[in-house]
Amino acid sequence: MLVELSVNPLGRGTHLSHDLAEILKLIDDSGIRYGLTPLGTCIEGEWDEVMPLIKRCHEKGRSMSPHVFTTLRIEDEEGATDKINENIASVERAAGRRLRRC
Amino acid sequence: MLVELSVNPLGRGTHLSHDLAEILKLIDDSGIRYGLTPLGTCIEGEWDEVMPLIKRCHEKGRSMSPHVFTTLRIEDEEGATDKINENIASVERAAGRRLRRC
Amino acid sequence: MLVELSVNPLGRGTHLSHDLAEILKLIDDSGIRYGLTPLGTCIEGEWDEVMPLIKRCHEKGRSMSPHVFTTLRIEDEEGATDKINENIASVERAAGRRLRRC
Amino acid sequence: MLVELSVNPLGRGTHLSHDLAEILKLIDDSGIRYGLTPLGTCIEGEWDEVMPLIKRCHEKGRSMSPHVFTTLRIEDEEGATDKINENIASVERAAGRRLRRC
Repeated sequence: MLVELSVNPLGRGTHLSHDLAEILKLIDDSGIRYGLTPLGTCIEGEWDEVMPLIKRCHEKGRSMSPHVFTTLRIEDEEGATDKINENIASVERAAGRRLRRC
Repeated sequence: MLVELSVNPLGRGTHLSHDLAEILKLIDDSGIRYGLTPLGTCIEGEWDEVMPLIKRCHEKGRSMSPHVFTTLRIEDEEGATDKINENIASVERAAGRRLRRC
Repeated sequence: MLVELSVNPLGRGTHLSHDLAEILKLIDDSGIRYGLTPLGTCIEGEWDEVMPLIKRCHEKGRSMSPHVFTTLRIEDEEGATDKINENIASVERAAGRRLRRC
Repeated sequence: MLVELSVNPLGRGTHLSHDLAEILKLIDDSGIRYGLTPLGTCIEGEWDEVMPLIKRCHEKGRSMSPHVFTTLRIEDEEGATDKINENIASVERAAGRRLRRC
């Protein structure tokens, strides 16, 4: 299962990188498989591994602000592993060319 | 402006990489600044540059299927350039460490 | 906490209403506070009430297809209750007019 | 085509209803078919009708804040009309029961 996570605490000014850094440290320290994108963080694992970490990330956002928007986009494909790399690689194979990555 | 685009044509089986490859070729051939993520494609430019390309991507999806879901997540920050690289770099600077990328 | 849930099982043809009806029955039978929108279902409750139900909805989707996309948009505001009604009502009060609802 | 629109201007405090009311007035005054949900606004019409209005909504958000996140979820089904009502009605028919609406 691959989950793209984005946490947006309101009322924190127009720059979020310090808040997001605190949340990313939780993910980086967790030992879970992840990778940043320009608009979120992809986390890979089973539901019961991934969701407790996502809850902690959301709660970290709530410790910063009384009002938080969190978005999750979940892709769950039977038997798939390493979707963080394989999703892009399979599109490149189908396109027959290298494509740019973020 | 940074837009994360995801096009999902229904009724095309459980593997989408060939369909997505056709859409990615449009983006790659357009000359616009972009980068793939595991769950979408980030496109950077002004609204009037980016949206006609996104319309063509959506219409390519509609040429494959009579029923298409397309998701756009837009981040628009005054004066920002190179958000494809800078969003991750600014979180790394705030965290004081390197973070994994997709 | 308000969560907008959307479950999209791939490879099920171009009409999803029968699949979505099976998932909605789980929600309707759960006794949780919810409401349909044209593109998803809003569910209101605390994280630990809402997420087990959402997991069951996602797993119902996975019982239909080996490849499922699920999207969650979470709004969590301290002390807020009845966001299903209050979000629209507060925008109407601020606008000073009635607005159309889905 | 049905588009769920959500505009989130950063740095505007923790309550967004006055900002959202300004954006909703644009939509309400446009004469386009729309309906509010607790987490967004559904707008129905063809791409070239809907997108100029969405651009104006996004630009209104940018007039409030130098940093705006806007999310669009687009469902486009050939020959479909009145999806604002019909999406919920078709799930209710498939479920064989009335379901709650937002």
